[in-house]
Amino acid sequence: MVRMRITALAGGVGGARFLRGLVHHLQRTEQHGHRAEGPDGGESPGPSGRAGGLAGGLGPAGPVELTVIGNTGDDITLHGLRVCPDLDTLAYTLGGGVHEEQGWGRAEETFAASEELARLGSGPDWFRLGDRDLATHIARTRWLSQGGTLSQVTARVGQRWGLPERGVRLLPVTDDPIETHVVLEDAAGGERAVHFQQWWVQDRARTPALRFTVAGLDRAAAAPGVLDALRQADVVLLPPSNPVVSIGIILGVPGVRDALRGTRAPVVGVSPIIGGAPVRGHADACLAPLGVEVSAAGVAGLYEDFLDGWLVDTADAPPAGGGYRSGLVVRTRELRMRDALGAEALAGAALQLALELR
Amino acid sequence: MVRMRITALAGGVGGARFLRGLVHHLQRTEQHGHRAEGPDGGESPGPSGRAGGLAGGLGPAGPVELTVIGNTGDDITLHGLRVCPDLDTLAYTLGGGVHEEQGWGRAEETFAASEELARLGSGPDWFRLGDRDLATHIARTRWLSQGGTLSQVTARVGQRWGLPERGVRLLPVTDDPIETHVVLEDAAGGERAVHFQQWWVQDRARTPALRFTVAGLDRAAAAPGVLDALRQADVVLLPPSNPVVSIGIILGVPGVRDALRGTRAPVVGVSPIIGGAPVRGHADACLAPLGVEVSAAGVAGLYEDFLDGWLVDTADAPPAGGGYRSGLVVRTRELRMRDALGAEALAGAALQLALELR
Repeated sequence: MVRMRITALAGGVGGARFLRGLVHHLQRTEQHGHRAEGPDGGESPGPSGRAGGLAGGLGPAGPVELTVIGNTGDDITLHGLRVCPDLDTLAYTLGGGVHEEQGWGRAEETFAASEELARLGSGPDWFRLGDRDLATHIARTRWLSQGGTLSQVTARVGQRWGLPERGVRLLPVTDDPIETHVVLEDAAGGERAVHFQQWWVQDRARTPALRFTVAGLDRAAAAPGVLDALRQADVVLLPPSNPVVSIGIILGVPGVRDALRGTRAPVVGVSPIIGGAPVRGHADACLAPLGVEVSAAGVAGLYEDFLDGWLVDTADAPPAGGGYRSGLVVRTRELRMRDALGAEALAGAALQLALELR
Repeated sequence: MVRMRITALAGGVGGARFLRGLVHHLQRTEQHGHRAEGPDGGESPGPSGRAGGLAGGLGPAGPVELTVIGNTGDDITLHGLRVCPDLDTLAYTLGGGVHEEQGWGRAEETFAASEELARLGSGPDWFRLGDRDLATHIARTRWLSQGGTLSQVTARVGQRWGLPERGVRLLPVTDDPIETHVVLEDAAGGERAVHFQQWWVQDRARTPALRFTVAGLDRAAAAPGVLDALRQADVVLLPPSNPVVSIGIILGVPGVRDALRGTRAPVVGVSPIIGGAPVRGHADACLAPLGVEVSAAGVAGLYEDFLDGWLVDTADAPPAGGGYRSGLVVRTRELRMRDALGAEALAGAALQLALELR
């Protein structure tokens, strides 16, 4: 049996929830056979024979391998510890340890250490790390200081969360430290740059961004396995992650965009914009400085050199022939992941579209 | 008014409890005037006019300054974080944050991060760090990595615990990393060395030590203020700390022993051995490889080149003229610190003896 290889690019919460839905979808497909579509059935099913023949079965020996390429531009050193917000959100979510309502961080988390760090005057105070989460950063920092690459460290974190047993391989897009900074106008009319996390978490992206710069990006090399996972994939999926500071950063790592342009796999994405607004986060504040319209079509335009299929919400059903590159298959469905079943159905629909486009 | 300067050498729990007792004693003396002896009155009072004229009053502007020189030989790097067990026990105890029954670590501590570190496979598993305690190590490691000395870092930790307001200055004996190792016989009849903490905590000092070696000790320089605090002290106190791996390490830092020999201050110690056994810890296992008798007199012999006064338990009342260097003033009293008041009384008695010997 030929193993199906699915590769996904992902940011944090939205991507993680979508991919957990994908894992559930594949597990369900394995259990129930030819069931390529999720339970909510909001989508007209594709050619089920073809889809059923490829999808289904996830696990170390199963017929599907899911490679998740995570954004590392959000990474930040806090209290001397290396924090990888998106990789951790992916590991926690796919491994069943995430704080469900919040979408990031650990379930049943405590904050004793952070409270003590504040008493010690060890800043910053705008990024509160939970005790369990902190352990991940402590272990990662130690392993990195011992010479481990971020790939190796991420694999160890993935093992702790049982990702290999689930057939999931979590890769950082690069082992080289990159950091997204946001250039803002300062009070005197000049410019200042702050770490993306500070703008995102402390400022809640309220101060308009002039532009984004990614320290280290031009010199970064794709991590081992990243380009191969894109080139040799059977399906490439873009979950509804932030197109600028999540997917955009991944695409900026030298070689990644070329690999996507050159892959024989269909590339199918899910719009992170519904009805002209981001589903969560501040994608609008990220699109503005790029001069890109905050719309499903606007985001698709950022991917137009490699995108084959695009899922948009029913609220964004395109006018006939309007706004999209010729040849792009745009499919309309409910995009909001209201719960785990909704995420599963959405992921199933995206996979279905990709399989149809093979 | 001339400020009285008291300098003490200290290990962990025993030293910290004694010194907290000393701080309480000095505060009480300040409040009540000429009261040089603690509340339990087990000791015949010394010349009260002399003692009352010197003791009393502790605080940043008070007439007494207490400098505590802490052992750093127990220091260890765990999970990439620099842990200073004795300095932290001193800060937590003197600052009111210690786990009272345990004697070390933080009160009302939780262990979420350590549990997660174990799940991540980030060892070792024999040294469990609490979440609040961990924050101290995280901040210290960060400050050290930013170029701070251990003295500077310890001062910041001391500030968090309000030590300056209490008139207490906590100094590491050296800013240079030193680590006590224990040489043990291995199964094949050869030798192996393990970190002191591993032997002490994991092995509970059950395996007989052949000897102790202290990595870095010969090249270590006394931290700023340490030698001056001994030379310019009015009183030097040795709390009932381990004479080998706590006080002994401090004495091994070049210059410290000479400063003690040369100081004009009376040096008064409290025996950590009562009735031929250590009060707590495994001092007997530490004295054995030195060939030193596990007795109050045996420990005094380790200090004989600078010791002026020695408090021993009533159980160890010396025979007339027996076992001690001629000229050493040996005073007998109850030494067990059964509670905070007991520690206060003991510290008061030690100070009293020192003031008599000036």
